[in-house]
Amino acid sequence: MGHLIDGTQTEYVRIPYADNSLYRIPDGVDEEALVMLSDILPTGFEIGALNGKVQPGDTVAIVGAGPVGLAALLTTQFYSPAEIIMVDLDDNRLEAAKNFGATQTVNSSDGKAIEKIMELTGGKGVDVAMEAVGIPPTFDICQEILKPGGRLANIGVHGKSVDLHIEKLWTHNITLTTGLVNTTSTPMLIKTVQSKKLQPEKLITHRFHFADIMKAYDVFAHASKEKALKVIISLD
Amino acid sequence: MGHLIDGTQTEYVRIPYADNSLYRIPDGVDEEALVMLSDILPTGFEIGALNGKVQPGDTVAIVGAGPVGLAALLTTQFYSPAEIIMVDLDDNRLEAAKNFGATQTVNSSDGKAIEKIMELTGGKGVDVAMEAVGIPPTFDICQEILKPGGRLANIGVHGKSVDLHIEKLWTHNITLTTGLVNTTSTPMLIKTVQSKKLQPEKLITHRFHFADIMKAYDVFAHASKEKALKVIISLD
Amino acid sequence: MGHLIDGTQTEYVRIPYADNSLYRIPDGVDEEALVMLSDILPTGFEIGALNGKVQPGDTVAIVGAGPVGLAALLTTQFYSPAEIIMVDLDDNRLEAAKNFGATQTVNSSDGKAIEKIMELTGGKGVDVAMEAVGIPPTFDICQEILKPGGRLANIGVHGKSVDLHIEKLWTHNITLTTGLVNTTSTPMLIKTVQSKKLQPEKLITHRFHFADIMKAYDVFAHASKEKALKVIISLD
Amino acid sequence: MGHLIDGTQTEYVRIPYADNSLYRIPDGVDEEALVMLSDILPTGFEIGALNGKVQPGDTVAIVGAGPVGLAALLTTQFYSPAEIIMVDLDDNRLEAAKNFGATQTVNSSDGKAIEKIMELTGGKGVDVAMEAVGIPPTFDICQEILKPGGRLANIGVHGKSVDLHIEKLWTHNITLTTGLVNTTSTPMLIKTVQSKKLQPEKLITHRFHFADIMKAYDVFAHASKEKALKVIISLD
Repeated sequence: MGHLIDGTQTEYVRIPYADNSLYRIPDGVDEEALVMLSDILPTGFEIGALNGKVQPGDTVAIVGAGPVGLAALLTTQFYSPAEIIMVDLDDNRLEAAKNFGATQTVNSSDGKAIEKIMELTGGKGVDVAMEAVGIPPTFDICQEILKPGGRLANIGVHGKSVDLHIEKLWTHNITLTTGLVNTTSTPMLIKTVQSKKLQPEKLITHRFHFADIMKAYDVFAHASKEKALKVIISLD
Repeated sequence: MGHLIDGTQTEYVRIPYADNSLYRIPDGVDEEALVMLSDILPTGFEIGALNGKVQPGDTVAIVGAGPVGLAALLTTQFYSPAEIIMVDLDDNRLEAAKNFGATQTVNSSDGKAIEKIMELTGGKGVDVAMEAVGIPPTFDICQEILKPGGRLANIGVHGKSVDLHIEKLWTHNITLTTGLVNTTSTPMLIKTVQSKKLQPEKLITHRFHFADIMKAYDVFAHASKEKALKVIISLD
Repeated sequence: MGHLIDGTQTEYVRIPYADNSLYRIPDGVDEEALVMLSDILPTGFEIGALNGKVQPGDTVAIVGAGPVGLAALLTTQFYSPAEIIMVDLDDNRLEAAKNFGATQTVNSSDGKAIEKIMELTGGKGVDVAMEAVGIPPTFDICQEILKPGGRLANIGVHGKSVDLHIEKLWTHNITLTTGLVNTTSTPMLIKTVQSKKLQPEKLITHRFHFADIMKAYDVFAHASKEKALKVIISLD
Repeated sequence: MGHLIDGTQTEYVRIPYADNSLYRIPDGVDEEALVMLSDILPTGFEIGALNGKVQPGDTVAIVGAGPVGLAALLTTQFYSPAEIIMVDLDDNRLEAAKNFGATQTVNSSDGKAIEKIMELTGGKGVDVAMEAVGIPPTFDICQEILKPGGRLANIGVHGKSVDLHIEKLWTHNITLTTGLVNTTSTPMLIKTVQSKKLQPEKLITHRFHFADIMKAYDVFAHASKEKALKVIISLD
């Protein structure tokens, strides 16, 4: 859908195998919140929080505070980690991250993210590092800050190989995961939205009428300048 | 200790194998909160929340709002269930449970707890039922309210056998667990206290000086009348 | 199918949602072996071996040596238990069980199964007990022979409630599971048949032509007398 | 022991905290078999088979047929994989691997291991790849032959970083693990030796009297030429 079948930005859509692939919206749930569940929330949850096996009391670092990184931040909190350190180049996004539950933020533009995170963790490093950017330097931050026994959950879309420091990590009992969302967690996420444990509507920064769809694309194309996280296009 | 070795209600104590069995108190952590970690919190957590495999979005019922049931209530919230229904005979305890995070309470003194819980859950029942009393009628509530696929975590100390309705449950994919705390979760619980995700000091209702230890026992002997949950005895 | 839709004992059959519910037979695999995968093998595997979490080195008891108990016996061996004790009233079936991999057998017709199993295990009991009959006395054997930390996997179809000795088991860290097969393990089972790790064709004791289908039913109706385990009806 | 404390190649040894760190040898178990449990068997089992989560029906490749690779081969069979492909440069070791349960062998000295393994698996690759050498080319084989959803269990001791093809693997839902043995599996391994499910004494190729200990070291220093796998030094 939108990949092998023509997409869905239209008023009506015919869904093949809809009996198997759609979920009923529970009564009284905010529909805009559920729009967030189509892609970024299950990605952040399944590939970040679940693959990273976040546990109560953990220290977690999320490198990349874009929509997917923020979705990982929101869903990581389901498991009550002690600390969530958010890392990004953009202070606006780090500010947003604080509002969404980050306990610490690190601006990595000075190239000193590793030292800062090690200092924040008393030299111990983190239990879980999530890579939500997709380039070698951010992957590198993740592998350098990992505590023995730690888990590195890669969420980012990568175009190049990375240098894995297995000469150091081979004794460290680490687990590295990759993955593409498969949305098996959607029923669970719907329940968390319904009970307000998850409030993904917070990610919506802009709303456009369907007639203004091209403006919506313009804003999203300059997401950083426009402080845009997620954009809603509606018929109302 | 207190079982095969003489107990510890004294000013100094010699702990055998202390290197292996004690945990260092982190700087700045409330010591009274950590007293709660000696028994009830790991019991509620390990035998209730962990055995019951509480998941985000779950509906959980805890039958019994005594100290262990309340400890289960506090630690169940680590996993962001959608609903926690607390069941007890005592309205004071149910009131306390609401303050500690229960989303619904059921007073079972009229013998209609099962019907009420089924109604609260739209006829579906619960994902996890925790038995924290230890008598056949409360065990019965737990087995009757369980959703297919549900988990029944027994925490209560039982003196009699119970009638298990396996003629109904055999198709329901349920899991029933029993257990005695082994405190392997103590390091994790210390981290959650340190980060304020867990505030077990809320369970403390009374404080006594060591010189008044017999009064402390009196109060605890009439816990319901005195609205006592946990009692601290100190040398200060 | 055979339940809400008319059954399949015919030459051709129309399967609703066949794209989602059928598996391709790999080249060169014995089709009769795969017939065994339609019901009893996934039942024994999912509800017995998987629910019972059989581990290398475990001591396992399977109470009931009918087709499902034998399917549990075959699939339990995937996990290399040290001992598998098979319990039944019928010496023929126990003899079959030995051929299928049981390391010990116990004829329970004298009512002393519990004592015998405790003796066979040096007084320790078993790590996993599987109930594959469905009556209170066999359930009782299972609960009495369980080691602390043990798992009781109920496979039997029960018509009556059972008396659960929770007054003893509450401290024993046990796990009791129930369930109905859902055949999610079918792809795994097909691979084990293909690699000859599983040889379910051993369960076939009788073969009939489609024209003689009523004879097949007669034989199966007197399974014990006929020493029948599974019956194949074919068009060849 | 042998690291921070002087080693144990002597007739008597004093073990600190022996109450906590030693296991009783069960009656009737071959003591030489148990010598194999001191290091290589738990390493192959914990870091190979357990970290790699080998499942019934899986296709497994083990790259490196030295003692640790062979230990992984022996213990992987606890979980009934369909195929185990052993990869090494030395035909003698590959021959040994066949005797120890490998279903296929690949001599990688021509640099075509990846193509050969893909061909052996019908172009699908393997569910689990274990790296038991510790150099970039063998790590590379492992990452290139992994099926989507596959697990790469690194056992090898590495001196250099490796190039991880995350630009390809990011969508493949893979899990990569590293680790150093911690011997928590020793009680389980003892039971599997006791029940003959594991016969690690097969790894013993040479025996020396304590008086000839220097000869033993000589043989092991030329392990390939001497076709030595493991060497026993005894006082008898």
